[in-house]
Amino acid sequence: MLKDWVKSKEPNKEELNERLNTARAALSNMQTAIKEKKLPVLVVFDGWGAAGKGSILGRVIKNLDPRFFKVTTMIKPTEEDLRRPFLYRYFVNIPEAGKFSFFDSSWMDDVTRSYLKGETGKEEYQRQIASIKRFERQLSDNGYLVVKFFFHIDQKEQKHRLHELSADKHASWRVGQWDLWQNEHYDECLKVYDRYLENTNQFVVPWYIVDSDNRKAAELQVTEILVKNISIALQNTQRAVPILQNTFPLASMPKLSAVPLNKTISEEKYREKLDKLQGQLSSLHNEIYRRKRPVIIAYEGWDAAGKGGNIKRITAALDPRGYEVHPIASPEPHEKARHYLWRFWNRLPKDGHVAIFDRTWYGRVMVERLEGFCSENDWQRAYNEINEFERELYDWGAVIIKFWVQIDKDTQLARFTERQNTPEKQWKITDEDWRNRDKWDLYEVAVDEMIEKTSTDYAPWHILESNDKHYARVKALSIVIEEIEKRLKKS
Amino acid sequence: MLKDWVKSKEPNKEELNERLNTARAALSNMQTAIKEKKLPVLVVFDGWGAAGKGSILGRVIKNLDPRFFKVTTMIKPTEEDLRRPFLYRYFVNIPEAGKFSFFDSSWMDDVTRSYLKGETGKEEYQRQIASIKRFERQLSDNGYLVVKFFFHIDQKEQKHRLHELSADKHASWRVGQWDLWQNEHYDECLKVYDRYLENTNQFVVPWYIVDSDNRKAAELQVTEILVKNISIALQNTQRAVPILQNTFPLASMPKLSAVPLNKTISEEKYREKLDKLQGQLSSLHNEIYRRKRPVIIAYEGWDAAGKGGNIKRITAALDPRGYEVHPIASPEPHEKARHYLWRFWNRLPKDGHVAIFDRTWYGRVMVERLEGFCSENDWQRAYNEINEFERELYDWGAVIIKFWVQIDKDTQLARFTERQNTPEKQWKITDEDWRNRDKWDLYEVAVDEMIEKTSTDYAPWHILESNDKHYARVKALSIVIEEIEKRLKKS
Repeated sequence: MLKDWVKSKEPNKEELNERLNTARAALSNMQTAIKEKKLPVLVVFDGWGAAGKGSILGRVIKNLDPRFFKVTTMIKPTEEDLRRPFLYRYFVNIPEAGKFSFFDSSWMDDVTRSYLKGETGKEEYQRQIASIKRFERQLSDNGYLVVKFFFHIDQKEQKHRLHELSADKHASWRVGQWDLWQNEHYDECLKVYDRYLENTNQFVVPWYIVDSDNRKAAELQVTEILVKNISIALQNTQRAVPILQNTFPLASMPKLSAVPLNKTISEEKYREKLDKLQGQLSSLHNEIYRRKRPVIIAYEGWDAAGKGGNIKRITAALDPRGYEVHPIASPEPHEKARHYLWRFWNRLPKDGHVAIFDRTWYGRVMVERLEGFCSENDWQRAYNEINEFERELYDWGAVIIKFWVQIDKDTQLARFTERQNTPEKQWKITDEDWRNRDKWDLYEVAVDEMIEKTSTDYAPWHILESNDKHYARVKALSIVIEEIEKRLKKS
Repeated sequence: MLKDWVKSKEPNKEELNERLNTARAALSNMQTAIKEKKLPVLVVFDGWGAAGKGSILGRVIKNLDPRFFKVTTMIKPTEEDLRRPFLYRYFVNIPEAGKFSFFDSSWMDDVTRSYLKGETGKEEYQRQIASIKRFERQLSDNGYLVVKFFFHIDQKEQKHRLHELSADKHASWRVGQWDLWQNEHYDECLKVYDRYLENTNQFVVPWYIVDSDNRKAAELQVTEILVKNISIALQNTQRAVPILQNTFPLASMPKLSAVPLNKTISEEKYREKLDKLQGQLSSLHNEIYRRKRPVIIAYEGWDAAGKGGNIKRITAALDPRGYEVHPIASPEPHEKARHYLWRFWNRLPKDGHVAIFDRTWYGRVMVERLEGFCSENDWQRAYNEINEFERELYDWGAVIIKFWVQIDKDTQLARFTERQNTPEKQWKITDEDWRNRDKWDLYEVAVDEMIEKTSTDYAPWHILESNDKHYARVKALSIVIEEIEKRLKKS
């Protein structure tokens, strides 16, 4: 796209000023509609060093109310960022509904820079491109407007600007080693950038090349393209998008009704195994930490199935400095205003740490589906979106363990009744639990579909038969140990 | 996509039958909505020889009313097809609004087969991929639902089927040389198909791989995917899509108001030049024919600007067996029911022939824009769509010459008045001409934008100053000759 790039004719000064005023006013006026229609707008500024990204960004945001945008400068990943998947720092900064988020440099910079420096090979580069395409498509599918700009100048112009900046004692800090390297290796960079732009030029999230020789003309290009794209996106808030075919290998899983629930373990055997397994997990936890493996354990299951007690038996074996338990309730307003996976990206563990989720992102295809909190298109898409999310975690190096804690309807009734009749347990049982119980059959259909469609080979579901809670706890511990050991052996 | 392809679990017989009945009924019931919402549905069946494309197609269409679908079997291009751009035979067969079109084998087959046979190199392959991506995106952008299936079987299964078919005297005709070659070179084909699927797996027009081991299960996959995609598309009939940035080199063009119209030619000089130029064009026409160059001449301009007389002076120099003039009026109902470029694809000349269009595809950004016959999103997208269309023609080898026949407003008035006062010319002037004249200023804005955005270096506009019609005719002839000679020299 860059190699055969041709500038469009620059308007004369008068026309430029006139169009710029029109575009600025239009952008400013759009804020109300963006807020009302709850459109999230992500604007990405990439391009050559010294192409003027920062200064154009400064001009563009002058048209916007500061309460409605956030600028994130992505220079170098922090230590914290580096311990998470490479898209983490971008995902946590996506805009909320009705607001703008501007990224000064994006994932493009990470990927192309590592490649140019020889830190990543072709294979890793391809993997990252695939991740990026999924990420951008998921945002678009979930109603985000993503506008990507690449600020383009030629080698001579860049050299000239870097020289001028260096000579200016107030501006010389702006010239980094990387900018100089880029200028020296301009053709090499051009080739890599060009291919990156080609690879990620998806029609739903296309690239716009900004001819950046002239600052004002560049601002005009950016503002006009923003206005055009926002006005299109505002028409499309109820868009339904294609459901992609699953491309991840799936394990064959039984339906819940086919899972025998008569498994038990004796008290004595339970104590003995618990002890042994917790000891094993405890020492594995050290190894995880040492080898910087992130571990993610996800719990879903029927109310009163025994998730809480099960989690306790896991955490009991872990060093408290190395794990976190995340109880997931309905999303807070600031969470609801973003991609439904956002609150989970925010809760990802650092590498070497364990995160346990008590209820998870699978809410999308269970409660959100059944209660109509999202559209049918939303939850139908979610199986693939979740598989992609977990694939991202897997590729990052995570061990992903998903438990469905299974009991039968009678056992649930018995436990509900017991809770209701036991004063110190009454807090555990609410009207909502009873309402959910009424929808048992509908939930079972949803859970069966979920388990069928999201048991990928890298993150399969494990069903814990929990009519006997002891049996379920021992089984959970064994699986956690086994899965961690499997993954540690691989690397 | 094929290499790491994993089958999904096949449902048991009972479930299969039940789901198949549900899906068949759903597809059948959707026909009314498809018709009412005027959704055009293009379904593409690609895949391995003997994978059962034909028989599944036969099963699927059983659910549809024969008045609402058309099946096109794309085995080999005919002689006629081969004299046109490679996408021609597909474009002319796209469905009309509210109907289905099924392609048994698509452009995928052309492109991959030529590549496998070594008839096309990497560069040509890349060019074809780019064309295909544009083609599919344009269909989607213009409201078409495009569903692409790839029928997959492994080498062993294919071998087995080919063997069985060959042994059956009633079916042996179905086994072609190509099928056998494919089976012998299965791994090589797999690699090429896999890359093709990756390259063209656009999220708006994704691929669906059909596991074709079992005929009934394959039918189920196809029918369910169709039902799902149609139901999504039915929600999206008013969709606005992103306006892509121009990526074609544009010439710098003047605004109409800056074109001086005082150019004239003496009667004597005119006769002399006309004679000479027509002689030159006449012999060039032979060379075009011999060298199989298609030539496309497009005329746009103000009413009474002198298009008709100008065209006559061109055709006078041409052998009547080698050219066709297409007067373009408002589209017929069957044309209106398709992509707006469809009626022009249908009128493409054979190679070695000349097609002259009296009014053109640029109606989209002039009359359709100004009269509201299409949405703003439609005509804003059209500049790029038209540049892509003309690029396709150029890559095919065509000489593309576009004339804007320019006069001033006073000259138009004089000619209108003369027409009205001359009995034998009265048919040439209508109420509509006067109404259009009232909109002169609005048209001028649209024409300026059109000329600015579609003067690509491979198909630039030429402005014919036609206050003096003789001058315009001589200029047109010179340009036609020059452009043809330029192109002939290149190859």
